[in-house]
Amino acid sequence: MTNPFEQHLDKNAANYQPLTPLSFLSRSALAAPNHTAIIHGNARVTYAEFYARCRQLASALATRSIGTGDTVSVMLANTPPMLEAHYGVPMTGAVLHTINTRLDPAIIAFQLDHAGTKVLITDREFSSVVKAALQLATVKPLVIDYNDPEFPQTGEALSTEDYEAFVAKGDPNFEWRWPKDEWEAISLNYTSGTTGNPKGVVYHHRGAALMCYANTISTGMTRFPVYLWTLPMFHCNGWCFPWTVTMVQGTHVCLRWVRAKAMYDSIVKHNVSHLSGAPIVMSTLLNATDDEKQEIGQVVAFNHAAAPPPASVMAAMADAGFQLTHLYGLTETYGPATINEWDESWDDLPPLERGAKRIRQGIRYVALEDLTVLDAETMKKVPADGETLGEVMFRGNIVMKGYLKNPKATDEAFAGGWFHSGDIGVLHPDGYIQLKDRSKDIIISGGENISSIEVEEVLYKHPAVAFCAVVAKPDDKWGETPCAFVELRPGATATADEIIEWCRAGLARYKVPRHIVFAEVPKTSTGKIQKFKLRELAKEA
Amino acid sequence: MTNPFEQHLDKNAANYQPLTPLSFLSRSALAAPNHTAIIHGNARVTYAEFYARCRQLASALATRSIGTGDTVSVMLANTPPMLEAHYGVPMTGAVLHTINTRLDPAIIAFQLDHAGTKVLITDREFSSVVKAALQLATVKPLVIDYNDPEFPQTGEALSTEDYEAFVAKGDPNFEWRWPKDEWEAISLNYTSGTTGNPKGVVYHHRGAALMCYANTISTGMTRFPVYLWTLPMFHCNGWCFPWTVTMVQGTHVCLRWVRAKAMYDSIVKHNVSHLSGAPIVMSTLLNATDDEKQEIGQVVAFNHAAAPPPASVMAAMADAGFQLTHLYGLTETYGPATINEWDESWDDLPPLERGAKRIRQGIRYVALEDLTVLDAETMKKVPADGETLGEVMFRGNIVMKGYLKNPKATDEAFAGGWFHSGDIGVLHPDGYIQLKDRSKDIIISGGENISSIEVEEVLYKHPAVAFCAVVAKPDDKWGETPCAFVELRPGATATADEIIEWCRAGLARYKVPRHIVFAEVPKTSTGKIQKFKLRELAKEA
Ligand SMILES: Nc1ncnc2c1ncn2[C@@H]1O[C@H](COP(=O)(O)OP(=O)(O)OP(=O)(O)O)[C@@H](O)[C@H]1O
Ligand SMILES: Nc1ncnc2c1ncn2[C@@H]1O[C@H](COP(=O)(O)OP(=O)(O)OP(=O)(O)O)[C@@H](O)[C@H]1O
Ligand SMILES: [Mg+2]
Ligand SMILES: [Mg+2]
Repeated sequence: MTNPFEQHLDKNAANYQPLTPLSFLSRSALAAPNHTAIIHGNARVTYAEFYARCRQLASALATRSIGTGDTVSVMLANTPPMLEAHYGVPMTGAVLHTINTRLDPAIIAFQLDHAGTKVLITDREFSSVVKAALQLATVKPLVIDYNDPEFPQTGEALSTEDYEAFVAKGDPNFEWRWPKDEWEAISLNYTSGTTGNPKGVVYHHRGAALMCYANTISTGMTRFPVYLWTLPMFHCNGWCFPWTVTMVQGTHVCLRWVRAKAMYDSIVKHNVSHLSGAPIVMSTLLNATDDEKQEIGQVVAFNHAAAPPPASVMAAMADAGFQLTHLYGLTETYGPATINEWDESWDDLPPLERGAKRIRQGIRYVALEDLTVLDAETMKKVPADGETLGEVMFRGNIVMKGYLKNPKATDEAFAGGWFHSGDIGVLHPDGYIQLKDRSKDIIISGGENISSIEVEEVLYKHPAVAFCAVVAKPDDKWGETPCAFVELRPGATATADEIIEWCRAGLARYKVPRHIVFAEVPKTSTGKIQKFKLRELAKEA
Repeated sequence: MTNPFEQHLDKNAANYQPLTPLSFLSRSALAAPNHTAIIHGNARVTYAEFYARCRQLASALATRSIGTGDTVSVMLANTPPMLEAHYGVPMTGAVLHTINTRLDPAIIAFQLDHAGTKVLITDREFSSVVKAALQLATVKPLVIDYNDPEFPQTGEALSTEDYEAFVAKGDPNFEWRWPKDEWEAISLNYTSGTTGNPKGVVYHHRGAALMCYANTISTGMTRFPVYLWTLPMFHCNGWCFPWTVTMVQGTHVCLRWVRAKAMYDSIVKHNVSHLSGAPIVMSTLLNATDDEKQEIGQVVAFNHAAAPPPASVMAAMADAGFQLTHLYGLTETYGPATINEWDESWDDLPPLERGAKRIRQGIRYVALEDLTVLDAETMKKVPADGETLGEVMFRGNIVMKGYLKNPKATDEAFAGGWFHSGDIGVLHPDGYIQLKDRSKDIIISGGENISSIEVEEVLYKHPAVAFCAVVAKPDDKWGETPCAFVELRPGATATADEIIEWCRAGLARYKVPRHIVFAEVPKTSTGKIQKFKLRELAKEA
């Protein structure tokens, strides 16, 4: 029998349009033309102006024949052109590639070539590293220098094209290109390279638009938020907040450098309501000197991810008046894809138990359709016992299109119809997940899995330990044994034996580190520990 | 050249899932299992229970072979089973058809036959009218009686199937059916029949899911809102709020009858944060007696649509502490699809000008991709002068699939790639639209268009006029002339001549009504004036 609800009820231009975050900017320019869209130093940009400038940028790029299938790369701090690029580039049909400004020339050159960069917009702060990268790269993009009028930079100009002059050539009424299909690529983000070589993650318009909606819900954003840009926009497109904040006519407060004084100044002066970042941002705020710090009158929502912050840091942030939300995600999931949805009743738990709830990564984002922990071999769900380890898997509309020019990695990542996160975790009885390790970082000793995070948690409780990281060291008898790298607190002392003794008191015997190395731990630019480097060091330990 | 962003980056189960609001309930059951989802009389239902009951309903329906392509009709007040039906029915793949409980047996019978109803869930409050409808109808659905334990109804039972017993047979862990395609139908809503015969509007999962996101943004809903059900859920699925409120783990406060005392009691007792409704709900609140009224401590967001409320009513509501948002939409657009986004600077305008801003219908909803006013003949945009009349047109993802079993009306509605609203309006210089009339209600006198709303606005300013409606009366010389139906305020007097004189002072000569009829104006159950009936009466005036 034919289904009457499928007869003559097809898609057409009136009832179906590709989802895209670009539509949010044109709407906000109507909804709040005179509201401040961007604050940067002493500069103020209204929504009408922001929209006009993005159209100008798109128009100027289109004049240079930039369009579908092209890549525009940007090496920019959290400044207005970075926001403009999030609209102006995809408005031509091209793909925005944001470069981590802390990378070295070789990796940047690799990215430019891999991405096939046609245009490169670069801030003069980074011109020496970019110059070196361009010399290494095969592609010869059109280079455009951004000369920040608010914070003039002294780096050499790499081109005769100046960003402001380039934009000025464009038409503020440019008829920008709506994507033909919501599956079209909008941006390209390379992973952090924590576990090895970075991969080029491709986002589509559909996912980016849905992330905007989901982000407002996760962060409790209503109309006119004030968002402080502590999270680099080059990281997962700033978790899609360049589009999210714009959707609700918020004010983007730019921040060229994530420094304590500038943060406190902005928070107080502009009445900031929201910010996001890795634990390093928290530390910067907390470790500010007294004359950098300021009394904050309003409640500020702080959304943190990237790594599990120590419980003590979370507590201190809450004391300082920040309202924390713990998110977790990957470059592959447009930024956050899980949220530690807080149960009001947990407020009444004793501090330690409350902390244990806080560090859980939580449940699926509202725009993610499924999240679970599976045995990666059998693809069966692990028991929800909070103990059995498995791989965290995602399924839904905020999972990437795939890795650019990397069919093998793409197929592996999507094997069995789930996105394999490479993170090892457990499923709690209430359905919340908790990360226990990276799959590449798990230590297998005598056939038993040891979560390096579990060992680190015990180490962190030791009063002399400031920072630590545990990795596998090859062992003839056990296969692998845990090896701990430890940074001591200034002035504190502890011997290897004392620390091993401490671990014995808190861990099963086989999980106790056999070796303790006192040394500084190498980290990525986003503050993540690079365990693959530590494993090399551990071999010699 | 091949586009690298389209190579080996296709959809798969891991990165693409059909959008559906059903996913929001399962998530909320994880996010806040113990939070109150539903309040009804003295009954309280948590999110864990709500989800379990919806799955039970779905399971029980599936056992009766209900699934894709089937229609489940409900004749229910704003009670828990109505909320359950919004999930339980589409969880089987079937389509939910909500019947306006104020309709008469003939129209209900028409709807049941047209919809091909397989199951009918009906509240005993409505059993006499439903019994009559079933006698008239050709379909023979499985009838299930809802016996409200909180507000027992005395109407005759129409079946031996009791709703609670039926649900109890279902499996609370039922594996509900995720739609295979987001374009699948989720519900069926008949239009109000203001301009003639009601048409069966089909909604899909994609639109319903997007409406949830857009509704939270329009109404400023964050987590845990408390929503008072004054808007009938049978009307455009309560503007999709049964799904919206659930998405953010809100509390649905049921309301069997929209009466002043019950509203004030609920608002105060349950700390209601949001409600929606037609102007009639405002009048009910404002016209409450002193012992029905209560002091409201919190700010309550009131989202109104359906008809333009008189400026005086809007002002009184604001005084009473309600925060008004003016929305406009049609059954065909899932409820509201435009919003009067308020510019903070308008607060400083003198009352009359502020009122003029308030009554404008505004700009597109965030989930609607385009909105404009076109000349319906040429399909060209009218000048944005706030004066030139045209037809309001919509384009986007919250426009219906089409009209059920009505290819002709569907094609007409979507002609030229726009949804034709049938509403006549203007485009203001700032891009906001304002309605001026229904296209069927516009009066053409001597070749000039007269907006009946414009004439009504002048009449409303007359101190003796309580209610009025202006329609066309056929005229040999002019083609048509305006004819006004007027209800006077209790105790007030005015003659036809006085009223005509009043209009002369405020209107161009040709717009002044030639005839004034003092009579009660016929309205639909949602409080809308049925001008097609008035036009019949006007012929004899
Ligand atoms: N809230 C969190 N708690 C713990 N770990 C987190 C959290 N949020 C993110 N992470 C870690 O960050 C990872 C995602 O980081 P990102 O995508 O930036 O690159 P990367 O995985 O570090 O680099 P690469 O994939 O190149 O090795 C996650 O897989 C997870 O291991
Ligand atoms: N804010 C508003 N201001 C003025 N009119 C409104 C507003 N909101 C809705 N309306 C009117 O309500 C109509 C939509 O109502 P609905 O879909 O319930 O059925 P109807 O159009 O009244 O009935 P039918 O289509 O069967 O004639 C709109 O087309 C518009 O005329
Ligand atoms: Mg990774
Ligand atoms: Mg209509």
